[in-house]
Amino acid sequence: MSITAEILSIGTELLLGDIINTDAQVISEGLSELGINLYYTSVVGDNPERIRRSVELAKSRADLLITTGGLGPTYDDITKETVSQCYGRRLVRHEETVRRLETYFSRRGITLTENNYSQAMLPEGCTVFTNEWGTAPGVAFDTEDGKSVIMLPGPPSECFPMWRECAMPWLASKSDACLVSRTIRVVGLGEAPMEAMLRPIIEKMTNPTVAPYAKVGECLLRVTAKAATKEEAFAMTEPVVADMCSRLGDVVYGVDAESLEARVVELFAEQGKTIATAESCTGGLVGERITSVPGASRVYLGGAVCYSNEMKTRLLGVKEETLARFGAVSRETAAEMARGARERTGADFAVALTGVAGPSESESKPMGLVYIAVAGDGIEVVRECTFGRAGGRERVRSNAATTALDMLRRALLGLKLEK
Amino acid sequence: MSITAEILSIGTELLLGDIINTDAQVISEGLSELGINLYYTSVVGDNPERIRRSVELAKSRADLLITTGGLGPTYDDITKETVSQCYGRRLVRHEETVRRLETYFSRRGITLTENNYSQAMLPEGCTVFTNEWGTAPGVAFDTEDGKSVIMLPGPPSECFPMWRECAMPWLASKSDACLVSRTIRVVGLGEAPMEAMLRPIIEKMTNPTVAPYAKVGECLLRVTAKAATKEEAFAMTEPVVADMCSRLGDVVYGVDAESLEARVVELFAEQGKTIATAESCTGGLVGERITSVPGASRVYLGGAVCYSNEMKTRLLGVKEETLARFGAVSRETAAEMARGARERTGADFAVALTGVAGPSESESKPMGLVYIAVAGDGIEVVRECTFGRAGGRERVRSNAATTALDMLRRALLGLKLEK
Repeated sequence: MSITAEILSIGTELLLGDIINTDAQVISEGLSELGINLYYTSVVGDNPERIRRSVELAKSRADLLITTGGLGPTYDDITKETVSQCYGRRLVRHEETVRRLETYFSRRGITLTENNYSQAMLPEGCTVFTNEWGTAPGVAFDTEDGKSVIMLPGPPSECFPMWRECAMPWLASKSDACLVSRTIRVVGLGEAPMEAMLRPIIEKMTNPTVAPYAKVGECLLRVTAKAATKEEAFAMTEPVVADMCSRLGDVVYGVDAESLEARVVELFAEQGKTIATAESCTGGLVGERITSVPGASRVYLGGAVCYSNEMKTRLLGVKEETLARFGAVSRETAAEMARGARERTGADFAVALTGVAGPSESESKPMGLVYIAVAGDGIEVVRECTFGRAGGRERVRSNAATTALDMLRRALLGLKLEK
Repeated sequence: MSITAEILSIGTELLLGDIINTDAQVISEGLSELGINLYYTSVVGDNPERIRRSVELAKSRADLLITTGGLGPTYDDITKETVSQCYGRRLVRHEETVRRLETYFSRRGITLTENNYSQAMLPEGCTVFTNEWGTAPGVAFDTEDGKSVIMLPGPPSECFPMWRECAMPWLASKSDACLVSRTIRVVGLGEAPMEAMLRPIIEKMTNPTVAPYAKVGECLLRVTAKAATKEEAFAMTEPVVADMCSRLGDVVYGVDAESLEARVVELFAEQGKTIATAESCTGGLVGERITSVPGASRVYLGGAVCYSNEMKTRLLGVKEETLARFGAVSRETAAEMARGARERTGADFAVALTGVAGPSESESKPMGLVYIAVAGDGIEVVRECTFGRAGGRERVRSNAATTALDMLRRALLGLKLEK
């Protein structure tokens, strides 16, 4: 597929700066996986004349137009009307969508107004993407002169899944191919060294393709294969995923995992083991991340946030002598915090963090210095981390939490815990 | 100023979806404060021909072009060359920038290469925005036919402050006016009722202008005045800020405050009072938010995360009988958690949260039901909150944490705590 695409995001709220255009980023990422060139993206407000001009411009310079936004039921949602007009399509009532809307609203005890029915007026002969996450369906169609159009709703909670689950497969199917994308998630190895290590191999690959991405505190590899069927495409990813995983080693925490914390919860649940936390500089962030996973109660008991020295003693039994001799930010304090949390909660594993989040430095210890301890049956390891000042307090805390979660994973799996 | 602006973000990494275009959002917000109309924003890659076409298009439909990105020292940073060409400006060496770069690099022990000097080649006769956050200066100039151009670096850590501190004042100064913007922050009142309440008053205002914005879990009003001097503009905001605050009442938690948590830390520090937390469904989020504020150690002692029933008893002394009779998600458990946290830490105030974050429901209690208790000297209040399913688990937790922080503020200030 050597076609070119253009993204047009529609919504005055984007031009007012009320919201960030995350839709464009997610769609861009997907186009790049599909090997579709993207030369321009733009944003326009809810103004029919300017939308029309933007659509005409996109039509003149790209094969595929993807719009986001303006599919709602209110008077300023005019994407379908305007875009369909530009491509010479009329809108017709889509009965299945009418029924879906009626069910959706009656379940909530709401009667549909005339406005709501406008959401069921769709371009004639289009492919309808059922919206499982909201009310406005997405649509796609091809024109006689070889152009294609996709329209997706604006709210990211609807746009993201509809892009990945409906629009991307529709695009892939146009080339008689099914597309399967796998994600290898990596923690504890930067994007630059990962890329340097894999570039000679991945830059020659065409199907599957392998693309590295950096995320905050971690990175990922996306392996994407095209084939006649989903099963075939999936099968094609398998050896590549296996090869990449074996090259990367134990920094891979999961394939197609949702997040590090989700993977930690899953692994501990599989082994029936429990976790406790003892947090100083992160102030509750590790607990917050673990409990952001639905069902975290299967493995997470709780723990203590002890921001002051006194609380380290009162809540976790850290010895006053340890604090006086080594300081709150020390290997020894971290170890006693982990031990204390484990004893007081009865958890199988406890992780403890104490450090200098900054911006000010304390006890003549530099910002970004964090000690992270893990205690478990026969395990007691403290890792000294220096996260540096760049990125500020927030980045230090977030990197510390990520490292703590990774150390829990490593402790459970019996992997090397020291750097 | 009834001019129209257009934002052009330049960088292939944006089209690949590697990064989100936060620059455009921040600039859009500022333009709207300045009363400058923004009709289009677009993104183009590091391609000279496509940049040229995009610049010509913007020039044809807007008075002011703002570009971001492409000011770095490498071969694909071609914004200045291309844009200057379109506007008929030649690039000349800016000696002050040369000296700044030499100082910047020599401090880091790096010798400048020819590439680096290219960053000092700037459009003839332009205004130079010194970059205190990186190396590439920003520039601005006016053309004979009444058009204006601003070029800013792409990295948000450079673009955001240069936009607010250099480019926005430059734009304001073009109308012989200084601009002062104040922020009234509101919690516990939705954007829709706030807007309904204030619209008749604010929609007639021209200087200062008052604009409402919705943020997650809270909202804000931005009051912006233009005058000949900063002092005068600030003075003009004063009666409007006072009027808005008195209309809104105690849902205003701060004027020009950074965040609710920062305001809570500030208020407690002023009164020399301390805080403890006891979290179940939020798993540490309240502690995390308090400790995200630099210097939170002045007021925050710590607390317990007790995700399981047993931990509520072990760590906070909640009676087993209470849990058995009323359940973990109950008014009674929340109250005992707060009391326990206060006793065990010795804090002046403790806040406790227990609820159903979802997605699954427990004890036949609905998702979104959260009990939040505050305990203090002579104070013990439990609020029953129903945050609803929309927005999911994350939104329930985040709204619960915001309400908990607001209840701490209200308890300290002796404001009404019940809804």
